[in-house]
Amino acid sequence: MSRVILSLDVPMDRERLKELSHHLAGVKVGWPLLLDLGPSKVSELTKGLGLKVILDLKLADIDSTMVSIASKLKSLGDGFIAHSFVGIDGALDSLRRELKDRELYLVISMSHPGWSDEVYQYLLQVTKGVNPEGLVAPATRHSVVRRARADFPDKIIISPGVGAQGARPGSALCAGADFEIVGRSVYLSHSPLDSLLKIVKEQEVAINECKGGMARET
Amino acid sequence: MSRVILSLDVPMDRERLKELSHHLAGVKVGWPLLLDLGPSKVSELTKGLGLKVILDLKLADIDSTMVSIASKLKSLGDGFIAHSFVGIDGALDSLRRELKDRELYLVISMSHPGWSDEVYQYLLQVTKGVNPEGLVAPATRHSVVRRARADFPDKIIISPGVGAQGARPGSALCAGADFEIVGRSVYLSHSPLDSLLKIVKEQEVAINECKGGMARET
Repeated sequence: MSRVILSLDVPMDRERLKELSHHLAGVKVGWPLLLDLGPSKVSELTKGLGLKVILDLKLADIDSTMVSIASKLKSLGDGFIAHSFVGIDGALDSLRRELKDRELYLVISMSHPGWSDEVYQYLLQVTKGVNPEGLVAPATRHSVVRRARADFPDKIIISPGVGAQGARPGSALCAGADFEIVGRSVYLSHSPLDSLLKIVKEQEVAINECKGGMARET
Repeated sequence: MSRVILSLDVPMDRERLKELSHHLAGVKVGWPLLLDLGPSKVSELTKGLGLKVILDLKLADIDSTMVSIASKLKSLGDGFIAHSFVGIDGALDSLRRELKDRELYLVISMSHPGWSDEVYQYLLQVTKGVNPEGLVAPATRHSVVRRARADFPDKIIISPGVGAQGARPGSALCAGADFEIVGRSVYLSHSPLDSLLKIVKEQEVAINECKGGMARET
């Protein structure tokens, strides 16, 4: 079972995606692709390939706005990403209800250098209050992924930042993530399939290493 | 000169908007309208009415994603709203460059009850580092608007939360905001023009009251 989610930031030929899909757990679709193709063509591209479709809208608004956006795009996604920092009352409480039949993922930390994890404790408290199906924690910050896994043993953790952003494939899995999100390193590659297979292989090597490491520690 | 910005969350007849435009400083357009109409029809609806168009995308992502979204929608907006909490390095630094010929507004606080102003000091520091043209501070939290005005004497402050969200028209202006954002209380009204004129009148009354208050205090 693949532990790679492809961030589909640019349009891709359906046949090409189908070819990749055998080695993917899912695709992550955000505003750039929605603006390039429009919702209906995004649906045509991503549906029916046996892939989980996560809409990475980074929702971060008041209840009425987030619910309006989610309701318009609900049919496109199995999961939706929102920001925990907006808080619960008048915001994530209503979004949680709107997405009761979908997976909700809350961002608890981000992958870029300018993100401050000083607010982690606050985001932890909000996330526990909302009780989403999953979390987004950055592959570029292993200590945060480890902390999120310890704080949320039963949640799905997806980790962006592998490849173009610098994290080594498999490193976030070793830290406790369930899936690693790759984007540019695959879709900008001259041979996306080869690049994806290379990442899958690197994940396996890393997992064997860290399992070995864990074995040695015990 | 009007100090009302209309949040255009739902489609509106162009003639109706033209009628309202004489009493508006601008319109705020977010993802719901972009999803309903598509970018080109949003442009047809909002351009050429002498209104400032602020795209309320609540951008809150890494640099490459925010820059991609902003570049695709740049032609639609005079101003763009992003979240300060994502930080500068690898996020708002690149967005600021992408929008150098546009107004950038950073959210420093929000209008719903679940928002926590415990992070205000951090958002203040980020906002000073980015140096945007404007700020978004909630009409539902006058103390925050006053604080933002004191911390940013020269920035444009726009305040959502008037009307449906409970803030009284003019109250944010008295606290230091430059413009108040109204939405549902106008576009859901049986007579949007009458509702808008009522809000403009209430703003004038409130401003005269608080000016009087200030005069008495001196």
